[in-house]
Amino acid sequence: MSFISSWLRDDIKDISAYQVPDAQGMTKLDAMESPFPLPDNLISQYLAYLTNVELNRYPAPKALELQKTLRDLMGIPDHFGILLGNGSDELIQLLALACNTGDTVLSVEPSFVMYDIISKFTRINYKGVELDEKYEIDIETTLASINKYNPKIIFIAYPNNPTGNAFSREHIVNIIDTAKDSLVVLDEAYYAYAEDSFLQDINNFPNLVLLRTVSKIGFAGLRLGLLIGNKDTVEQLDKIRLPYNINTLTQVSANFLLQEKDEINKNATTIISERAYLSDNMNAIGELFVYPSQANFILFKAPKAEGLFEHLKDNGVLIKNLSKSNRLTNCLRVTVGTREQNKQFIDVVKNYYGRQ
Amino acid sequence: MSFISSWLRDDIKDISAYQVPDAQGMTKLDAMESPFPLPDNLISQYLAYLTNVELNRYPAPKALELQKTLRDLMGIPDHFGILLGNGSDELIQLLALACNTGDTVLSVEPSFVMYDIISKFTRINYKGVELDEKYEIDIETTLASINKYNPKIIFIAYPNNPTGNAFSREHIVNIIDTAKDSLVVLDEAYYAYAEDSFLQDINNFPNLVLLRTVSKIGFAGLRLGLLIGNKDTVEQLDKIRLPYNINTLTQVSANFLLQEKDEINKNATTIISERAYLSDNMNAIGELFVYPSQANFILFKAPKAEGLFEHLKDNGVLIKNLSKSNRLTNCLRVTVGTREQNKQFIDVVKNYYGRQ
Repeated sequence: MSFISSWLRDDIKDISAYQVPDAQGMTKLDAMESPFPLPDNLISQYLAYLTNVELNRYPAPKALELQKTLRDLMGIPDHFGILLGNGSDELIQLLALACNTGDTVLSVEPSFVMYDIISKFTRINYKGVELDEKYEIDIETTLASINKYNPKIIFIAYPNNPTGNAFSREHIVNIIDTAKDSLVVLDEAYYAYAEDSFLQDINNFPNLVLLRTVSKIGFAGLRLGLLIGNKDTVEQLDKIRLPYNINTLTQVSANFLLQEKDEINKNATTIISERAYLSDNMNAIGELFVYPSQANFILFKAPKAEGLFEHLKDNGVLIKNLSKSNRLTNCLRVTVGTREQNKQFIDVVKNYYGRQ
Repeated sequence: MSFISSWLRDDIKDISAYQVPDAQGMTKLDAMESPFPLPDNLISQYLAYLTNVELNRYPAPKALELQKTLRDLMGIPDHFGILLGNGSDELIQLLALACNTGDTVLSVEPSFVMYDIISKFTRINYKGVELDEKYEIDIETTLASINKYNPKIIFIAYPNNPTGNAFSREHIVNIIDTAKDSLVVLDEAYYAYAEDSFLQDINNFPNLVLLRTVSKIGFAGLRLGLLIGNKDTVEQLDKIRLPYNINTLTQVSANFLLQEKDEINKNATTIISERAYLSDNMNAIGELFVYPSQANFILFKAPKAEGLFEHLKDNGVLIKNLSKSNRLTNCLRVTVGTREQNKQFIDVVKNYYGRQ
């Protein structure tokens, strides 16, 4: 037996390494990325802006300039605090580390898998409460679970991934209000495509914080996430942040690129209208059941989903196959792309079902 | 009482937030940074190389191109595995997360404070074994502690920070050989300035891994660290790495910049010779006790150290004040800079002690 297999704890050994599918040359509609590259005129300005970056020095420890840019972009009031992470993942991990041994994290299911995985990494308990058949929060079961497990943290993705819907505001308020001792973390990764946000509700609920990211609005390559909460909450959580966690290139680049608010908003509007185009055309294919979405992707149920997924791949379109996941039998998820990409996707799906 | 102060565990609440001193306009000799910026001719090539970066897409998940560049730069054999982190800090945290509840991490003291701090963050025990009066490993006490605490991980910085010395190879081999059930992590952050390395010893010891970083060789702004170990060890540890942890800009930039092996090696040679210059001139000031260094900084004991530190600051030179740390009474640490910076430092120190 190798050293590491006797050394490492079993629950990590048992994990199979996550396989990222090869997307070389494919129309990539699998990962909720924005399909829009930087405009050419912006690239040259951006590179000029990088000229004076001092890579031999450590980054600015609190990234205050970038914090200000994020406030402007997302309308975050000055009296809220901001904590930056390498993607939301690092912030989910930081929150899990703030828990104590024996604490429980609660979320709904199906939802973002990292709440569960990171709980395992950080050696705390995880409890998933099933959504109802429409992927809405089952408020009675959820409140009963909160009462039973007394979770230290409740993660709710709003809108939810991979289902795409935004849960009932009333239910969420009910949860925040009931679980007064729990930190309720609303993960608004898809805020740019949603009708509603809980940003201003931070004023009313001391146990509420938000997660956001720039990954879904055109900057997945930056791996920049943020936690927004009351100043005193952020100040305390900030103690667990590893020093200089956001590197200089990320800070400087994000600071420049995220000032392009008009471009970012224009792209979000385009995606919302493309989502309607995609949804309408998918609905027109009788075989599919299309779930409503407030995100930049659409979940749908398809007969012979596995076959459709492979057929799409064979025809150069990569989407996400969820059909083997719990509660997602025959479900696939497609990220909203450009009109051309969406059309390509629709055409291949039609072809699979023998339609014109 | 605010929500967060009743919610957060006491040991985190008790931490005072780390204060990074303001270095605006100062000669910065406090943080083991390289004093050498990118050469002008390289900057334009570098920026041209960034032109095609696709920031709207997620990074390459395993950063294989960058791994290859790091192998070339550091002479890492193909049969070793590499795990990348946002600074060594993220890798220390990953190793601590691989431990189980109740496990103990052991290190020597004084050493890099993050071994202790990250153990606290990750809710595992930490045990520090005191170095002897020359800051060498006290092998008998260390082996006795290993026997007593049965540590899951032993962190040893080689060379050590903040003392600057490289411990006896014989002692380290003794520890690796004795603690067969412990993962021994040699932190070679300062490898570029040291006479010896344990890189090839990975072949002989299944329980040995190394940490390195590009922070001390000119790229602190990148926050890029790496763990080097046997392939099967790295493959297992990689499961705890957060997906896409190294962002696209870091990958592409490091991949380009770290190919400048000649420039990097030339700068390291300069620093080693400047370290001798600095050490000789500090020794010539009778008041100082200068510790031997195999790193890019020098630890020294100075009468009225606090006053000297302030005097240096008043004269525009920022170094690190360790005089209040355990076992480091009256000790200060100066990073090796350019000749001009080193001269400035020496002149201010002479001036403080009334010398010419």
